[in-house]
Amino acid sequence: MPTRASRGNPNVHSEFHLIQQVKQLLGSAGTSVVVGIGDDAALIELNPKHQTLLSTDLLIEHIHFDLTYSTLVDVGYKAAVANLSDIAAMGGIPRYMLVGLALPPVLRRTTPVKQLYKGIRQACQHLKVAIIGGDTSASRQDLFLSITIIGENPKGLCLTRAGAKVGDLLYVTGTLGDSHCGLKILQQHKAKTSRSSPHSSKRPYQFLIARHLRPTARVDIGRLLSAGRIATAAIDLSDGLSGDLHHLCQQSRVGAEIEETHLPLSRACRTYATAQQSNPSTYALAGGEDYELLFTVPPKNQKKLDKIVHALNYPITKIGSIRSKNFGVRLTSYNGKQKRLTRVSYQHFTNRTPGSFYRHA
Amino acid sequence: MPTRASRGNPNVHSEFHLIQQVKQLLGSAGTSVVVGIGDDAALIELNPKHQTLLSTDLLIEHIHFDLTYSTLVDVGYKAAVANLSDIAAMGGIPRYMLVGLALPPVLRRTTPVKQLYKGIRQACQHLKVAIIGGDTSASRQDLFLSITIIGENPKGLCLTRAGAKVGDLLYVTGTLGDSHCGLKILQQHKAKTSRSSPHSSKRPYQFLIARHLRPTARVDIGRLLSAGRIATAAIDLSDGLSGDLHHLCQQSRVGAEIEETHLPLSRACRTYATAQQSNPSTYALAGGEDYELLFTVPPKNQKKLDKIVHALNYPITKIGSIRSKNFGVRLTSYNGKQKRLTRVSYQHFTNRTPGSFYRHA
Repeated sequence: MPTRASRGNPNVHSEFHLIQQVKQLLGSAGTSVVVGIGDDAALIELNPKHQTLLSTDLLIEHIHFDLTYSTLVDVGYKAAVANLSDIAAMGGIPRYMLVGLALPPVLRRTTPVKQLYKGIRQACQHLKVAIIGGDTSASRQDLFLSITIIGENPKGLCLTRAGAKVGDLLYVTGTLGDSHCGLKILQQHKAKTSRSSPHSSKRPYQFLIARHLRPTARVDIGRLLSAGRIATAAIDLSDGLSGDLHHLCQQSRVGAEIEETHLPLSRACRTYATAQQSNPSTYALAGGEDYELLFTVPPKNQKKLDKIVHALNYPITKIGSIRSKNFGVRLTSYNGKQKRLTRVSYQHFTNRTPGSFYRHA
Repeated sequence: MPTRASRGNPNVHSEFHLIQQVKQLLGSAGTSVVVGIGDDAALIELNPKHQTLLSTDLLIEHIHFDLTYSTLVDVGYKAAVANLSDIAAMGGIPRYMLVGLALPPVLRRTTPVKQLYKGIRQACQHLKVAIIGGDTSASRQDLFLSITIIGENPKGLCLTRAGAKVGDLLYVTGTLGDSHCGLKILQQHKAKTSRSSPHSSKRPYQFLIARHLRPTARVDIGRLLSAGRIATAAIDLSDGLSGDLHHLCQQSRVGAEIEETHLPLSRACRTYATAQQSNPSTYALAGGEDYELLFTVPPKNQKKLDKIVHALNYPITKIGSIRSKNFGVRLTSYNGKQKRLTRVSYQHFTNRTPGSFYRHA
């Protein structure tokens, strides 16, 4: 039901008041919303010439975020970005959101809910995505966000994970591993002091923290890749390059080769890695939540891509190419040696070892 | 993202295996699903002549259900029904679902997830609703379900809460209060014994328990009311008649008068009320989760409704009529006296007083 007084909420009267406030906060949802927040379901009119994209993402306290160093606005923002990024990876146009909130006792007030919605709205605003409904309920202990996003795309233009062909070039947007470094900095700061103010630390660290708390969904680039029929496949990097590249290869039934020297690393990530005496590529390969796009482009489209990227100044890096399935997924290291790329996916707060990596069997 | 290995899950490899199993379990999603489970988003083709309905419902352990007397199949079933009921209340055709699951450590195995999906599938199967995606994650303590349903309806035929007119007749489907009685029986049984087997109790009680654990979404009746242009407004009874009638009246800017003698009560509900020395009307007015429909019909459509209801043997009862806003919402009691109907909404497990009623200010 679109954000109505839910079962399980101890104060239904004030929740109605809250719904009214949220409605005001969100403003008009656009002419294609026939019935918005406040009925049993939202009613919308989608473009009849388009196909519809749908995705749901859960964001859970102590699993995906920690309120000791994320504000509620940050949490709302990131939950929205995780969903927007799924639509970006399909090359779609994000249009609507449904927001499910389960609130622990301490957050069952108007202000925290408004802050969560503020973050969601900040992430959506420039894209004109309308929040058309949801559900608000109580939870015993942790804050849960469940966002569903609805997008659309002209028929036949969507990108999937399954379209990569042998010989295609492999690209990523932005820089990789920043979000993981940002999380580590926040966690190290939390371990040192109970008063959280990591924003006062060094400038490169501020960049990395911002990349963790306020990632960017690459909606524009995704749209360009699909509408221009430039890419053959795409996936968003939420679990880390090594894991997500394997997903793309599995779905496309191909292999891939990537070059360690080509991995796009920010100066801040390199600085952090040096301080930690680590190889920054590890962060790029296994660090999660970058929300950058990994995509494949046939060589014949390379010029077209370069031209557009140059004109629009999009941050895109070629990191390798698609090979046969038998080739597998391999990494050419700094030393020129080629090795099988292990799937290492990022696991957030699992087993109470925050930010630990989980190695697959 | 449609049911892919999520961040926060401690065993991503086995979760991929799980997704494969869920895909097999769910079977083919129909020809209008272009991309189903396993990509960044699901891609569907909706009927271009239809409007789209969307709703999200959360179902949370210890807030909405208790696994000491609900099986996981029951929980999945009821989560699906809560969503189907929202589409029913709009007179829509349910088509697709996205399923978000946050699993506590004890449920992070294949069998419990399959049981949850089994329940969802059981509730959806006769309606040909396809599960096209979702997200699976870890939670620290409680089980969370977040289901999003997508429905559709020919343009202009949807029912809302806002269409009721003065003079319209007020109807409900089925019998009211059964779910509340079923919950009370389960809770009383739980308090008496740690070994849960309330199904062995008396036959009327089995009926009430079944009405609580396996409610019916009135999709067929909702469709009939909208497609036949019979009803002017509708709402599903999830919070209890008194609360939901107030919602409908608020949205339609009208008042209403209902007759206590006309409230449809099952024999089992009366039997339970007698044993509890209670007035069964209280259960009908304030008991939640009946998932019946409350709807309004202009007098000119009454014959048409009667004819169809008779032919199809639908359980429908006229309980009152729509009055002016100034009249307010009133109940004519058994003794013929008219009184203002207080909004009493059902609150499940709030404040650790299971099944308590929450009285509005």
